[in-house]
Amino acid sequence: MEIKILREVLEANRDAAEEVREYLRDKGIFMVNLIGSPGSGKTTLLEKTIEHLKDTYRIAVIEGDVATDRDARRLQKYDIPIVLINTGGSCHLESVSIRKALGEFEASATDIVFVENVGNLVCPAEFDIGEYAKIAVSSVTEGHDKPEKYPLLFNECRAVILNKVDLVQFTDFDSPAYHESIRKLNPGAPLFEISCRQDMGLDKWYEWLSKTRDEWLKSVRR
Amino acid sequence: MEIKILREVLEANRDAAEEVREYLRDKGIFMVNLIGSPGSGKTTLLEKTIEHLKDTYRIAVIEGDVATDRDARRLQKYDIPIVLINTGGSCHLESVSIRKALGEFEASATDIVFVENVGNLVCPAEFDIGEYAKIAVSSVTEGHDKPEKYPLLFNECRAVILNKVDLVQFTDFDSPAYHESIRKLNPGAPLFEISCRQDMGLDKWYEWLSKTRDEWLKSVRR
Repeated sequence: MEIKILREVLEANRDAAEEVREYLRDKGIFMVNLIGSPGSGKTTLLEKTIEHLKDTYRIAVIEGDVATDRDARRLQKYDIPIVLINTGGSCHLESVSIRKALGEFEASATDIVFVENVGNLVCPAEFDIGEYAKIAVSSVTEGHDKPEKYPLLFNECRAVILNKVDLVQFTDFDSPAYHESIRKLNPGAPLFEISCRQDMGLDKWYEWLSKTRDEWLKSVRR
Repeated sequence: MEIKILREVLEANRDAAEEVREYLRDKGIFMVNLIGSPGSGKTTLLEKTIEHLKDTYRIAVIEGDVATDRDARRLQKYDIPIVLINTGGSCHLESVSIRKALGEFEASATDIVFVENVGNLVCPAEFDIGEYAKIAVSSVTEGHDKPEKYPLLFNECRAVILNKVDLVQFTDFDSPAYHESIRKLNPGAPLFEISCRQDMGLDKWYEWLSKTRDEWLKSVRR
């Protein structure tokens, strides 16, 4: 019973995700879904990334949050379109809400949409929202064993962020073990070791993001 | 549709949780449910706590894990009964599995059962597993805004752990803001500021746990 219904929920989600994907390809809007634990640094990464790319691309943001508008408020300073989705307790974003949120942006004036998912390593990885890329956002202080313990996200993502590398000396983080897990779960995904707080390693992430977006746009415009 | 079924799932969970609670009271087994983000330090806290209390209480552990037996293996050195529940992708433990797991322990030889839930700040808080106390395990490196952003757990728990306080100087953690959130969400819950890695602040936690368990036992034996 439960399983059957869950399947229906997942199917309805998949259908709406396909519509979202179609819409984004049609309008040439590149959408990225940031997924990670609470406190892994998704909002800070978003702040840095917006600051760096906002003169090159027209950026919009969909903020997923269980209960508050804290993260959305943190981004208001950039004067870009933001839609906040309060999930009211739910642990992930679904494509039906994303489809509605996208309708709030002027499509012809939007190059990239960043979605910040609810802080959670498990459920958001199960729900396709029509994005081009899931990005796994992890941090040194969570420990090196997280990819192995929560494999789905690290398996599905197109890139992995390892944040807070400035704190590595104060932890027992085993960097070779972490690298090895990522290599096993997702050999093709680039791994960006960064510190948002100390502004370390971000250039390669910006570069990869721009290049990936530009190539994606070429492919959908063909 | 979805909502109706979710309600059924929650109701079935609640019924089994009541059975579990009844069983624990009957047998005088104190059960604690550790909930927190991936990497907040649940397993390390458990290691420390077992080490400290194992000569006073007969301890057993139920380990919830999405996919691996890593955490269960970390606890094997203590030579205590451990049941591993692999949720197979699911983001929380439910009371039906807990009821089954408890059956694996010899009741007359068990004083305290620690449950380590799946690493997740959202879903585990919604599922009563028949425990006496939910403990919120958070850490400085996740940021001070987490109680406000994920209020359910911090509202429902009987105590809050703030781990990794040895790292506070390397972060932007706003301690008064964190305290204020906890005070608002859960004025009665004690807050233990600890570092498992540096062995700081744990004595008060051990003391509270023992005292709470002993008082609980008196109340059910009346």
